[in-house]
Amino acid sequence: MKRDSDAFADCVHRAETLKGDFRVALVCPDAETARMASLAKERGVAEPIAFGTQNVAGIETRVVGSPEEAVEGAVELCLQGGADTIMKGLLNTHTFLKAIVKSPFKTGYITHCSVLAIPGFEKPVVVSDGTVTPFPNLAQKVEITRNAIRCAQLLGKNVVNVAVLSANELILPGIPSGNDAAILCKMAERGQIASAVIDGPMALDSAFSKEACEKKGLHFAFEPPADVLIAPDLESAAMFIKSMVHLAGAQVAGVLWGTRNPVVLTSRADSERAKYVSLCLCKLAVSRQ
Amino acid sequence: MKRDSDAFADCVHRAETLKGDFRVALVCPDAETARMASLAKERGVAEPIAFGTQNVAGIETRVVGSPEEAVEGAVELCLQGGADTIMKGLLNTHTFLKAIVKSPFKTGYITHCSVLAIPGFEKPVVVSDGTVTPFPNLAQKVEITRNAIRCAQLLGKNVVNVAVLSANELILPGIPSGNDAAILCKMAERGQIASAVIDGPMALDSAFSKEACEKKGLHFAFEPPADVLIAPDLESAAMFIKSMVHLAGAQVAGVLWGTRNPVVLTSRADSERAKYVSLCLCKLAVSRQ
Repeated sequence: MKRDSDAFADCVHRAETLKGDFRVALVCPDAETARMASLAKERGVAEPIAFGTQNVAGIETRVVGSPEEAVEGAVELCLQGGADTIMKGLLNTHTFLKAIVKSPFKTGYITHCSVLAIPGFEKPVVVSDGTVTPFPNLAQKVEITRNAIRCAQLLGKNVVNVAVLSANELILPGIPSGNDAAILCKMAERGQIASAVIDGPMALDSAFSKEACEKKGLHFAFEPPADVLIAPDLESAAMFIKSMVHLAGAQVAGVLWGTRNPVVLTSRADSERAKYVSLCLCKLAVSRQ
Repeated sequence: MKRDSDAFADCVHRAETLKGDFRVALVCPDAETARMASLAKERGVAEPIAFGTQNVAGIETRVVGSPEEAVEGAVELCLQGGADTIMKGLLNTHTFLKAIVKSPFKTGYITHCSVLAIPGFEKPVVVSDGTVTPFPNLAQKVEITRNAIRCAQLLGKNVVNVAVLSANELILPGIPSGNDAAILCKMAERGQIASAVIDGPMALDSAFSKEACEKKGLHFAFEPPADVLIAPDLESAAMFIKSMVHLAGAQVAGVLWGTRNPVVLTSRADSERAKYVSLCLCKLAVSRQ
């Protein structure tokens, strides 16, 4: 496993040196997740306990009959105080989310953040939401934005620069993401969204490139690159995240918000490193709760 | 008629000293409008021609059979180049607008501005729209705002401070005027609404009073009082305008936009002075076209 040579090095280091228990219930861990969890235990990052249909070598396991029972058991353990949070293994995201959503472990609107370390950029960028809400309305975008800001703060920034993405920098009829962007900006200005400088609507190039902004002759509320990208909807977010991971060599970590403690939620296709970084981020989040 | 002692003194003076023809077709003038028009002719402000069901003493009159024919005749004269614009006399606003809206004299979305000289405030304030659109949507509010800015420029300001009114300074669910305000702000920032500094959502007190802003601990994009107030809808605009005129001793002028040249549109209840000021504003507008 590659270490300390990417944009995640700092938060991994902070999680590894952070004192205090961090107990994680692994739901249906595959071999890679189990290996990663053993490493996390060895490095003092987390204390894992597995819920799955078969025993996991080297990790205390509660054997259950189905993935549904595994996630329900993990949620129940958290609610009883036996674990701090949950990590998704080899099961469908829908099954995983269903048990969380119907339990008191859900404390707010559920949103997901992908944290990308893109080669050539020295800081990671948080992208949301590419996992939970297909077409978020304004109220949902507010929660998406607030949680993405919390996520970016784990990466070491107190006041976070947020780009609300749209097709264009202008407000155009028929492009509601531009309207949402304008409204989110004003909410940040009025203190309704804290700890952030927000600008948008913004095309992706403006969010990343100072030169693009200069060429367009536009001045934004912060200088790119942004710390957080709020996508118009799930499909555009997922498209961007996947293109970065599969075509630009980016590493991606995943954190779910709106629960008592942030949940580790990565894609099955994500690397062992991605899963380790996600676990580290959740540990940092729990230490701030 | 009271002169030169109110906030309108400057624009009246500029209209009276402005060179060049300004030919106005009066539609169904009552005695007061006719008197005001004779005065305007005497002072070199305008050259009146009347359209009505009876002859108007001292003014060239085309006698027609009905108010409908009067406004149609006036519009036709403008389209033929025989007059620059139209002024509403004693007829229903609906009848007056109907003939304009269906003619090529309409060049854009029709909006109305009330210009208030409120005792105690040294500059007039433009309020829109209290006459045309009951519940303007965002696209209509953009036109309302652009025309209100043009109107405020007649009063001598190049870059106009616009307050977009709402019930609260915050973006609140169920209050769409707050959303519209945020979007208009961003459009001004992006140059989609020119010559203006826009802030909102803003309650009325913030738009007028520096002290109110300080008490609320809010910093707006400009210092009050605003030059323009964009109301959430027609009823709230009309309520405010009427309360100022009937309860606070304000003078009000009225200008209609979205036509080849701005049209003089005052309420039948408005004073002779109000009508004279409105005519002066339209003359200034025509000289800038």
